[in-house]
Amino acid sequence: MSNHPLEEILHPKSIAVVGASDTGRGGGFLTPLQNQGFKGKIYPVNPKYNEIGGLPAYPRVSAIPGPVDYVISSIPAQQVLDLVEDCAQKGVKGLHLFTARFSETGRKDAADLEIEILRRARKYGLRIIGPNCMGVYYPKEGIAFNDGMPMEPGKAGLISQSGQVVGEIVSIASQQGVRFSKAISYGNALDFNECDYLDYFAQDEETEIILMYIEGVRDGKRFPNSLRQAAAVKPVIIVKGGRGNAGNRATVSHTASMAGSQQIWQALIRQSGAINVNKLEDMIDLAVAFSFLPPAVGRNLAVIGGSGGSSVLAADQCEEAGLDVIPLPRDIREKLKEIGNPIWDWIGNPADFSISMGDHQAAFQIGRLMVEHPAFDVVMTFVHGPWRRTPKPFSVDDHIQQYVQISLFGKAVVYVFQESRMQGKNDEELLRISNEIKQKMIALNLAVYPTITRAARALSRMIGFYESRK
Amino acid sequence: MSNHPLEEILHPKSIAVVGASDTGRGGGFLTPLQNQGFKGKIYPVNPKYNEIGGLPAYPRVSAIPGPVDYVISSIPAQQVLDLVEDCAQKGVKGLHLFTARFSETGRKDAADLEIEILRRARKYGLRIIGPNCMGVYYPKEGIAFNDGMPMEPGKAGLISQSGQVVGEIVSIASQQGVRFSKAISYGNALDFNECDYLDYFAQDEETEIILMYIEGVRDGKRFPNSLRQAAAVKPVIIVKGGRGNAGNRATVSHTASMAGSQQIWQALIRQSGAINVNKLEDMIDLAVAFSFLPPAVGRNLAVIGGSGGSSVLAADQCEEAGLDVIPLPRDIREKLKEIGNPIWDWIGNPADFSISMGDHQAAFQIGRLMVEHPAFDVVMTFVHGPWRRTPKPFSVDDHIQQYVQISLFGKAVVYVFQESRMQGKNDEELLRISNEIKQKMIALNLAVYPTITRAARALSRMIGFYESRK
Repeated sequence: MSNHPLEEILHPKSIAVVGASDTGRGGGFLTPLQNQGFKGKIYPVNPKYNEIGGLPAYPRVSAIPGPVDYVISSIPAQQVLDLVEDCAQKGVKGLHLFTARFSETGRKDAADLEIEILRRARKYGLRIIGPNCMGVYYPKEGIAFNDGMPMEPGKAGLISQSGQVVGEIVSIASQQGVRFSKAISYGNALDFNECDYLDYFAQDEETEIILMYIEGVRDGKRFPNSLRQAAAVKPVIIVKGGRGNAGNRATVSHTASMAGSQQIWQALIRQSGAINVNKLEDMIDLAVAFSFLPPAVGRNLAVIGGSGGSSVLAADQCEEAGLDVIPLPRDIREKLKEIGNPIWDWIGNPADFSISMGDHQAAFQIGRLMVEHPAFDVVMTFVHGPWRRTPKPFSVDDHIQQYVQISLFGKAVVYVFQESRMQGKNDEELLRISNEIKQKMIALNLAVYPTITRAARALSRMIGFYESRK
Repeated sequence: MSNHPLEEILHPKSIAVVGASDTGRGGGFLTPLQNQGFKGKIYPVNPKYNEIGGLPAYPRVSAIPGPVDYVISSIPAQQVLDLVEDCAQKGVKGLHLFTARFSETGRKDAADLEIEILRRARKYGLRIIGPNCMGVYYPKEGIAFNDGMPMEPGKAGLISQSGQVVGEIVSIASQQGVRFSKAISYGNALDFNECDYLDYFAQDEETEIILMYIEGVRDGKRFPNSLRQAAAVKPVIIVKGGRGNAGNRATVSHTASMAGSQQIWQALIRQSGAINVNKLEDMIDLAVAFSFLPPAVGRNLAVIGGSGGSSVLAADQCEEAGLDVIPLPRDIREKLKEIGNPIWDWIGNPADFSISMGDHQAAFQIGRLMVEHPAFDVVMTFVHGPWRRTPKPFSVDDHIQQYVQISLFGKAVVYVFQESRMQGKNDEELLRISNEIKQKMIALNLAVYPTITRAARALSRMIGFYESRK
């Protein structure tokens, strides 16, 4: 356990859900705690109920018999001051305010109320996550704010000003195999702010990669330092929301942030050593790379597979992403000639196997020689399903083995599985097999991407990170 | 019928498939003609068979009893000179050489053979498509080179040096609702070259949008003029393969092209008025835009829907794509206040409906006022399915109606249906409903995109085209 003040708050032995009900969002916080494995006590609080979700309900926090470490509030903003008093009386350590309609509304009375809440909480030593946020997802402790969030822990830590973004990233990244240490949505950042969360994740031993979605900064003086310190010890991938005029306006009504000048931001992030991306998709792609690939510092790329125009475009897109698609080394060609490979003088890099005319043996020889060769630092390979005419019996596990082989040489290998090409096949059985291939490869912790460009960019950015650390 | 020499060749009354067999690629050309509605005579040619695919087989083209207009060859390169003589004897007009291993192999004897084939064909007035290509997809005439290519005709014409690219684009674009007038893969461009195809599609009344995948040019003197003339009469969207060093090398072994300097290319395409994109995905996204959206020249965008951080990022990504996400007009706000909309002073553009807290009536009021308002030229709207807790009974048709409404104001509307967010739900019924929503919207000729960025870029590029035409 670290000494950071968030550490204790994130390890509650008991949680009260204030504003819980049988319906609506209050219930929405209760059921994930019940269903997703939280081992401590759970107390619904709502004076209108005797029981909620099979648990006895209490009229207020201070009426709960045992100790209460952490409180989730979904009651209206006007009732939060009373809640703070109630929590203080009970010795609560952490308060997550899902409750919104504070400063983000742009109304002065709402902003003033927010400040008064902070003043009182400080007086009592009560720390606040939020308001206007979804709070904490911590799979190892069984804390989740949506049903169905994966409960298997991992090494990616996510800090987000937006709760919707946490839900989206956890959902989509999970499909690509990424697992999370913890994710915190912090909304208006009234008490703990972006710097506190960064400092916490930087020193958190459960977190090896930091993902951050941020709209605006509460503590502009501290932020550059916190970001630099975090980026010095682990990869930090940032999406900055509110880059343009409209996005900037939107952040005000979303989390009451001033988004600041995009130029200042870009310079700040670049100087800190963090990785700046524009889209959540790019952040997830990097989370996949840092989760599953060994460190790589060279940019010489072997492109294995593909066909025809796709091979040509793969080369273009990889080069445009900053990778070097070098010519096939001469000694590979000589070796191929020696062993009688029929396309020894025609094949190149990218290795377009469509010219092998279905000679899988010849294709496999080439692929293996490329992966083994010291001239290549990193590898991209196309994952083919049984595109048509499924051989029966078709073994998905055997099929996957040829791809797994490529990953056994200690090089970073990105796999391109072009889903859109599969969706074009109106064949249920083919789709099912293809999906099974993808799912099993992801389960084997392989870095699978849906397009060449996404695979190439993630790989190139990851290499950039390790280059800068050399 | 036009006077262009391709017109007659693309309307054969009879087709012979030379090298047809019960298995392999020869059979691959025969069965699509049989299955996909070609109404003329089909003659398999192969001396080893008496019958192929239920049709009588002939030992050579000149042994076929009736007239033969068009021949598809999948026999080895060494036999093609004899085939040319045979075709000439029969009065064949067009020869599609799927046959490969000519100049693209880099071997001098193969390149010389190619030239001799051209010399003889010219002597007999026999015109050649290819070699080293998949040839013609012409749904209206029932000509296809793969089983399962959509046979419903449309207005997009596709010219591609790569056959694999034709297969991929037709397959993926079809899923997004795009239909084709005709698509031609032309490989090494021995006789008809890129300029001939461009000239043909420019004057073709069945083609309203031209898509072109090109690696290198055969007739560099003529090409700028052909491109400019085509782009003057209809949108021409080009993907240039072989932009970098590796891609350039790859084009040589793929279609025997020299890809040329990327700078020259970019300048040439820009000056021609064609639209230059780097990926097939971008080309397809533009085909969707030009297929389904009315012409638009203004860039003021209304963003309807989205939530939280996604709204903020939507604004950023739309602005970065060159659209103007203007503030919500004052009179809309006043109107909302007047009719008692509870979030009149909070809502903006993007209109983040998550703050309406499930008040669909309030959200719908806002959306409608935005679409109607003259300040907005174009519209982006998020398509939501029943994300969770499907209301039963749930009517997909009713659900879609609210989106269809938005398209009825004569403005270009792009719909963002975020599939990756849906795939995160482990709920078969939800996935089925969501897919049905998407399919039905596509069937209604709405422009549906999987991400904000792709929708925004396609819209912005389409506007750029119409702006340049003003």
